Amino acid sequence: QGNPEVMEWLTVSTLSIVVVGASGDLAKKKTFPSLLNLYDDNLLPKHTRIWGFARSDMSDEELRDRLRPHLTGDHSKEVVDRFLARCVYRSGTSYGDQDAFTKINQDMEEYERDHQDVKHYNRLFYFAIPPNVFADTALAIKKTSMQDESKGFTRLIVEKPFGRDLESFEKLNKTLAEHFTEDHMFRIDHYLGKEMVQNLTVLRFSNIWFERVWNADNIQCVILTFKEPFGTDGRGGYFDKYGIIRDILQNHLLQVLTLLAMETPVKLEGPGASRAIRNAKVAVLNAIPPVQIEDVVLGQYEGYADDPTIENKDTNTPTYATIKLSINTPRWYGVPFILKAGKATNERKAEMRIQFKDPPAASFLFEGEGENYCPRNELVMRMQPDEAVYMKTNVKSPGFTAKPIQSELEVNYDTRFFDHQKEANPDAYTRLILDVLQGKHAAFVRDDELRRAWEIFTPILKKIENENIRPVIYKQGSRGPIESDNFIMEKAGYIRNEDYVFHEGGV
Amino acid sequence: QGNPEVMEWLTVSTLSIVVVGASGDLAKKKTFPSLLNLYDDNLLPKHTRIWGFARSDMSDEELRDRLRPHLTGDHSKEVVDRFLARCVYRSGTSYGDQDAFTKINQDMEEYERDHQDVKHYNRLFYFAIPPNVFADTALAIKKTSMQDESKGFTRLIVEKPFGRDLESFEKLNKTLAEHFTEDHMFRIDHYLGKEMVQNLTVLRFSNIWFERVWNADNIQCVILTFKEPFGTDGRGGYFDKYGIIRDILQNHLLQVLTLLAMETPVKLEGPGASRAIRNAKVAVLNAIPPVQIEDVVLGQYEGYADDPTIENKDTNTPTYATIKLSINTPRWYGVPFILKAGKATNERKAEMRIQFKDPPAASFLFEGEGENYCPRNELVMRMQPDEAVYMKTNVKSPGFTAKPIQSELEVNYDTRFFDHQKEANPDAYTRLILDVLQGKHAAFVRDDELRRAWEIFTPILKKIENENIRPVIYKQGSRGPIESDNFIMEKAGYIRNEDYVFHEGGV
Amino acid sequence: QGNPEVMEWLTVSTLSIVVVGASGDLAKKKTFPSLLNLYDDNLLPKHTRIWGFARSDMSDEELRDRLRPHLTGDHSKEVVDRFLARCVYRSGTSYGDQDAFTKINQDMEEYERDHQDVKHYNRLFYFAIPPNVFADTALAIKKTSMQDESKGFTRLIVEKPFGRDLESFEKLNKTLAEHFTEDHMFRIDHYLGKEMVQNLTVLRFSNIWFERVWNADNIQCVILTFKEPFGTDGRGGYFDKYGIIRDILQNHLLQVLTLLAMETPVKLEGPGASRAIRNAKVAVLNAIPPVQIEDVVLGQYEGYADDPTIENKDTNTPTYATIKLSINTPRWYGVPFILKAGKATNERKAEMRIQFKDPPAASFLFEGEGENYCPRNELVMRMQPDEAVYMKTNVKSPGFTAKPIQSELEVNYDTRFFDHQKEANPDAYTRLILDVLQGKHAAFVRDDELRRAWEIFTPILKKIENENIRPVIYKQGSRGPIESDNFIMEKAGYIRNEDYVFHEGGV
Amino acid sequence: QGNPEVMEWLTVSTLSIVVVGASGDLAKKKTFPSLLNLYDDNLLPKHTRIWGFARSDMSDEELRDRLRPHLTGDHSKEVVDRFLARCVYRSGTSYGDQDAFTKINQDMEEYERDHQDVKHYNRLFYFAIPPNVFADTALAIKKTSMQDESKGFTRLIVEKPFGRDLESFEKLNKTLAEHFTEDHMFRIDHYLGKEMVQNLTVLRFSNIWFERVWNADNIQCVILTFKEPFGTDGRGGYFDKYGIIRDILQNHLLQVLTLLAMETPVKLEGPGASRAIRNAKVAVLNAIPPVQIEDVVLGQYEGYADDPTIENKDTNTPTYATIKLSINTPRWYGVPFILKAGKATNERKAEMRIQFKDPPAASFLFEGEGENYCPRNELVMRMQPDEAVYMKTNVKSPGFTAKPIQSELEVNYDTRFFDHQKEANPDAYTRLILDVLQGKHAAFVRDDELRRAWEIFTPILKKIENENIRPVIYKQGSRGPIESDNFIMEKAGYIRNEDYVFHEGGV
Repeated sequence: QGNPEVMEWLTVSTLSIVVVGASGDLAKKKTFPSLLNLYDDNLLPKHTRIWGFARSDMSDEELRDRLRPHLTGDHSKEVVDRFLARCVYRSGTSYGDQDAFTKINQDMEEYERDHQDVKHYNRLFYFAIPPNVFADTALAIKKTSMQDESKGFTRLIVEKPFGRDLESFEKLNKTLAEHFTEDHMFRIDHYLGKEMVQNLTVLRFSNIWFERVWNADNIQCVILTFKEPFGTDGRGGYFDKYGIIRDILQNHLLQVLTLLAMETPVKLEGPGASRAIRNAKVAVLNAIPPVQIEDVVLGQYEGYADDPTIENKDTNTPTYATIKLSINTPRWYGVPFILKAGKATNERKAEMRIQFKDPPAASFLFEGEGENYCPRNELVMRMQPDEAVYMKTNVKSPGFTAKPIQSELEVNYDTRFFDHQKEANPDAYTRLILDVLQGKHAAFVRDDELRRAWEIFTPILKKIENENIRPVIYKQGSRGPIESDNFIMEKAGYIRNEDYVFHEGGV
Repeated sequence: QGNPEVMEWLTVSTLSIVVVGASGDLAKKKTFPSLLNLYDDNLLPKHTRIWGFARSDMSDEELRDRLRPHLTGDHSKEVVDRFLARCVYRSGTSYGDQDAFTKINQDMEEYERDHQDVKHYNRLFYFAIPPNVFADTALAIKKTSMQDESKGFTRLIVEKPFGRDLESFEKLNKTLAEHFTEDHMFRIDHYLGKEMVQNLTVLRFSNIWFERVWNADNIQCVILTFKEPFGTDGRGGYFDKYGIIRDILQNHLLQVLTLLAMETPVKLEGPGASRAIRNAKVAVLNAIPPVQIEDVVLGQYEGYADDPTIENKDTNTPTYATIKLSINTPRWYGVPFILKAGKATNERKAEMRIQFKDPPAASFLFEGEGENYCPRNELVMRMQPDEAVYMKTNVKSPGFTAKPIQSELEVNYDTRFFDHQKEANPDAYTRLILDVLQGKHAAFVRDDELRRAWEIFTPILKKIENENIRPVIYKQGSRGPIESDNFIMEKAGYIRNEDYVFHEGGV
Repeated sequence: QGNPEVMEWLTVSTLSIVVVGASGDLAKKKTFPSLLNLYDDNLLPKHTRIWGFARSDMSDEELRDRLRPHLTGDHSKEVVDRFLARCVYRSGTSYGDQDAFTKINQDMEEYERDHQDVKHYNRLFYFAIPPNVFADTALAIKKTSMQDESKGFTRLIVEKPFGRDLESFEKLNKTLAEHFTEDHMFRIDHYLGKEMVQNLTVLRFSNIWFERVWNADNIQCVILTFKEPFGTDGRGGYFDKYGIIRDILQNHLLQVLTLLAMETPVKLEGPGASRAIRNAKVAVLNAIPPVQIEDVVLGQYEGYADDPTIENKDTNTPTYATIKLSINTPRWYGVPFILKAGKATNERKAEMRIQFKDPPAASFLFEGEGENYCPRNELVMRMQPDEAVYMKTNVKSPGFTAKPIQSELEVNYDTRFFDHQKEANPDAYTRLILDVLQGKHAAFVRDDELRRAWEIFTPILKKIENENIRPVIYKQGSRGPIESDNFIMEKAGYIRNEDYVFHEGGV
Repeated sequence: QGNPEVMEWLTVSTLSIVVVGASGDLAKKKTFPSLLNLYDDNLLPKHTRIWGFARSDMSDEELRDRLRPHLTGDHSKEVVDRFLARCVYRSGTSYGDQDAFTKINQDMEEYERDHQDVKHYNRLFYFAIPPNVFADTALAIKKTSMQDESKGFTRLIVEKPFGRDLESFEKLNKTLAEHFTEDHMFRIDHYLGKEMVQNLTVLRFSNIWFERVWNADNIQCVILTFKEPFGTDGRGGYFDKYGIIRDILQNHLLQVLTLLAMETPVKLEGPGASRAIRNAKVAVLNAIPPVQIEDVVLGQYEGYADDPTIENKDTNTPTYATIKLSINTPRWYGVPFILKAGKATNERKAEMRIQFKDPPAASFLFEGEGENYCPRNELVMRMQPDEAVYMKTNVKSPGFTAKPIQSELEVNYDTRFFDHQKEANPDAYTRLILDVLQGKHAAFVRDDELRRAWEIFTPILKKIENENIRPVIYKQGSRGPIESDNFIMEKAGYIRNEDYVFHEGGV
């Protein structure tokens, strides 16, 4: 877990964390549990204190009681208690209540004064609040609690949504940018914290056999998939305003795409790496033209509008979307990138799938009846349900015949690493908060990335709304609209190998 | 096990097999057991009869009794009995006894007359005899038992050694070529019958990701290894005349090399495929210059000459050899090919190992102290002890750090195929005899291949003998001479990743 | 012109040349002039004598008088006279007249006896006769004039046509193969003697920038063209039996194709090179499937049948043909190879043209209206009318705009080499006869090449004849049938850059 | 010269140009002549007026008289007169004289009021002044003459030197950045205006055959050379403070390198192209580590310090430098980039030279004595003395032998374009000023490029000064120090083909 030198900051700084919106779902389910994970792994500074802040009136103990049910996992009760002892609660009249923040600031200063032996006095604000109050909170922090840079850092963690479209993003961004620079800001897209996504750069750049096939000469298409087996479950009111494109494609899947498609950054580690990586990511985004309507399949699951929290019973909000993107670079010219996400489908799955082209000699070397006699290689990097990397590879049918059949060369993370070596697979939030503490920006979304992401998606989003484009209705628990499968075959040239059976008892 | 049309020959032909040298070790241990395997899998024609032939006087039943202990494996007693009932024995005064062969021919003709309903009357002669009697046997067969081609085939299976050097090979070959064409002849190198070796063509040509890295741009070196943990075990008399280079390198390992290195043949299956593949193999051999002494490390295990059957107690015969070959083609220019074989070493292993070059960006992308911070990819195709293919691939260290560590993407044949799908992994002889019956020449060694193989090795063999070049002495049960490891590092640029631990409980 | 060592044979051997068919057109126009070229360049042995042989009765001096008008070129009268002094004439009752050959043999022996100081006594027979008398002549030579190999070589130069189809080729070949091995035989295809064709191997293998683009990843199509601006000119009787496919495509253009498409031979020079090159060529042929009717456009020029020597006034013999071939190798998979030849067209031209694919980034990097805004690279190797190599390359429009326009990077042989350095560009026959004398087989067609060439073309030739497939009629002096241009655009994906103007006053 | 739509601005705007430093050399020799070129080509707006500004007292007519001798070239006297009629002169007490600029501003406003029918009122300030007065001038302009953006643009053209090192650059930049954004600023490096440099992007991205070899797999080294045959010629006082590294390498040659080495920008034309190109350039610079002393050869020509304007007679200022750079990207990893510049050498030359690697098969395919038997390909893009592109390519020696010899495939701009098509080859300044008017930033140097350029060179410059590192002395009129040639052979692996003779009378 890092070499001693690098981790020196753990002992020579205080850390004051303010979780703004401490009473909300996000704070309870993600922020505090992740902080606990870091705490239990000794990855928070020795001198760390946490202020919960929200509008509700609550005692410290009440906050702790609300948090406790979510602090599950592999932690001893004693650790949880010690962790909670560091958490206190403060309330304000609003998320922009400057008086309240002034008081928190006094608390923090007092805490910092108590630790005169350390070098840095760092402050972290976690915005577990809706974007409409970002501006007020930011202003209050700016006016009351900014740390002088020579004393220590002041960092803000911000959660999506970052707007509904280009205009709203720009407006929202402007309110933050007035008070804080990009250096202060860490916009979380938790997909960037997933093991397999973080693995992408290592896989791509430390293996020559990845490097050589990672281009349009060899790749037929790339498919990024997110599926979940449940619908809105009574939270459709919020969802209906955003839809699956904003919820999953424009951020999570597009972020994954940039890491998969970017050119090699100059650095991956050390000073300058974050900037290099985000430069490389934004270069990919700049090369993607805005989505056109003919490159979109929209679906809505049967019964979606029955969710009582959805007001517009004639809603056309998609719960399923398949979108083809292109990347205008020499590396990717002509390669379709498919983003696909759906709710209420037949399974929980998040994966990156790269289908390669037919090997040049295959069609005349191997005698066979069908088109698929010699199936195509596919590289699958699975994020959910469990993490694995496998390359679908043709081998000789064992025994007397020479017909190629498809097997997989695989590494399964559970069996290879997590079971055997007793290492934990930390969750995405935990990883990302640690990055914030270490000042690593690479896994956070920069303003220019977001701007370009919205430029790519805003026109199609507007068109869907303005022209009331209707989604295809699909059954709950199905694969989604059949139109999506057809679209992928036709537009991406994807060929499904019907003979392939994933090896159950295997890796 | 083949489609019905292709296998039609099983029902429409008689097959007469003559095992010449039926009382010897090879016949008992390999020939008859393999024939039984085919019989039990219904891969011998319905009408098959087997004549054992040797000089000893023996009844049919005595032959059966001698064979029975070797007919182990997964066969029911009833099947073994039925199989043996088809086996009879004939003796002759010598292996060239034309009278004896005349009688066998009469037997065969009678057997064939008994089955007038079939279309073909095929004959197979298996030479389980030493090469010094090949000529006499061949002549006797030619004079007495050649089948008219319109009636059926006459095929000869011949075993190594095919000479001791270029001259003796040419002489031996000439005696056979006088009576039989290459079409009649099937020279067995049983390495060509191994599952993993037969897999090579499928792996290479049906997977685009193999195709793209299979060249000098990407490959650092290729190492073909054969090791066994025992010495001559009292059979050193024979071995001492040949040595490890002739015994393993010049044939088995060189054959494997040709399949690994050949250009894509025009066909892999169907009419013309055997010719295409052997043309491609011989083209590789033509591009290999003869071995020079500076490209050789020789070893002899301590105590080798103590074997009582070895007459020359000052013998310099190598029991271990590491040899570097080059292939003068654009694909392989500058890539060292290492052939390495040893007796009385620390383990039983036969494998092909391809070490790839460093990925271009690795050295500056990944911060680290040592040279090996980002280990090289290695593709290992293991033939012994159990069959597996794995690619050593770098992945992100799971958890909080981004350091690359080496894992393996693997398919293990036992767990993936043989355990789960209850398919047998037929042994090399069984596969090869089936090929002979089907007239597939691809896995047999053609005369021009052997000629070139001898041209490559004869000069160095002569030099070792003439100049009495002394091998390095190594301990029994060791890795072999340390000089070999050093040679491979220096001459082949191979880098051993000391941190790598193969995953025991894994795939 | 070769280093001294290599050319030692010029002084240590006698050479007896017998031109069979000395009174015919080929002998007068090609054979003798080429021999004179070699003579004048001191590339015939000091002791060389030439026997003309035919059926006509003629004195030596009459032969010389008939030859003299054809011995033009850059030779002094004195040299011509000295050359002719070495030429004598003998006649026979037929081309197989064994008595006549016996006498010639006596002459040769006498000549050889006169030069006891040399090491070798070589004999060369040039078959300037129709194939129907090959057999008789060959037999006569075999019976009378074969040189003992230890004394010197006996070589035969044979001219096309080598049959009309697979069957007639096999028959013809058999008659020769009975008496002579491939080592004796030199089948001339004079296209293989052209400077630019011989240049192909140097261009391809000594320039890395050729090597890297010489494959299906980069090449859109290959077009080999032969056009001449005149028709049969009263010699249609012969032509009508063969047609343009046999006359140009199946031999000349197909031979050029094999050199352009072959894999790298193991050697290009020195011992074994001829075998290596011809192995590589035949491997290409083996990878070409037979021509299908849908891959053919046939044309006949208007008025063709008016040639009085053509008997069948309803002839369907094509005078123009465009044929698409495929090569089933990894290097060429999917690349159309177009062979195109025509008589009575608008120009005299023989060239190899390779059109490359669009560069991956071009379509989005360069703004423009049309598809052809950024034209494709084309490599042209021109054999006729004058020899040149040029690569059509895009450069920035000079001046203020950045639009790509097409220029050519060129080397023109006349201006670069032949004009300035006063080196002669020897004609194809001269080069080839010199090769024969040096025993270099590489530029001659081996039996297996011819066999495969006929296998590729025989089915379509039979179909055209049997089904009386009618050619498209095109105007004399035109580009040929418009159907051919369309075919090339559609089937080969060739795009013509209409804006391109070849630079007249230029290189 | 551009399509009508794009050039609409010529008629719908006024243009006021202020040449600050109008009495200096740069203004006379470059600025005004280039403006005249544009004027004569109708590439200045119809309504253009030019104010010369300097400290000297001068009438309009006196300015015109001073300019006239420099307004040579292919312009009619009438055009020159019309052009000069548009030029007026104003003087100030200093380059930061705000009163003077206020008056100029009044002039401009009056001029703009006179043209109420146009849409835009644009202003261009050309800084033909030393950098030490940049700040004052910039402030004066800011205070007096900034155009409101809605009315028209205000643009500044700035000339090098942009500092002496990182610190002085940052200081200088800060003074400008306080008043003007990068959008206002056009930093000229006139090498970016040269035809051949502008051609680089077209050559690289519109030709697939360039694209495929443009990487470390194929390129041995890149050598960028600038040589001039004269020394400081009495202007050494200025030069001695800068030296050849600052004068040529750190700016001109490094700029050329970035264009040659950058990854493909997303766009080359249209909106966003300038940003895309400069992003790509700065990415290359970011991948270049600072220069180390062992990668430098320094020279000083004999007699340099004799220049009377050089005060320090023991000066170690280099007049010749050869520096090796590396680029840490996958494309360029391991490829040496040599920058080489010298004064008082044997010739005037500026060129980019790319030497390719040996083709993989060459060493065994072509028999020969020496290492250089098959010379390497070289691509030369020559900027001076005349512009040409040629690829040194191996062809068969014409005639009877097959030895490769090196020829060149070339396009020479003078013969191909400028002579025949009567198109002018506009000079660099003219091209660049036109770009400024069109708002194209691509060919101008952005602040982050300069910053990084200084980061690369500042350490070595400091070291040379601080440690008084002595240059090698070389003779005037020589090739420069022999140490440079050796360095290039050893460090860059460059092989000079001694046999090569460039074809004089040729292309």
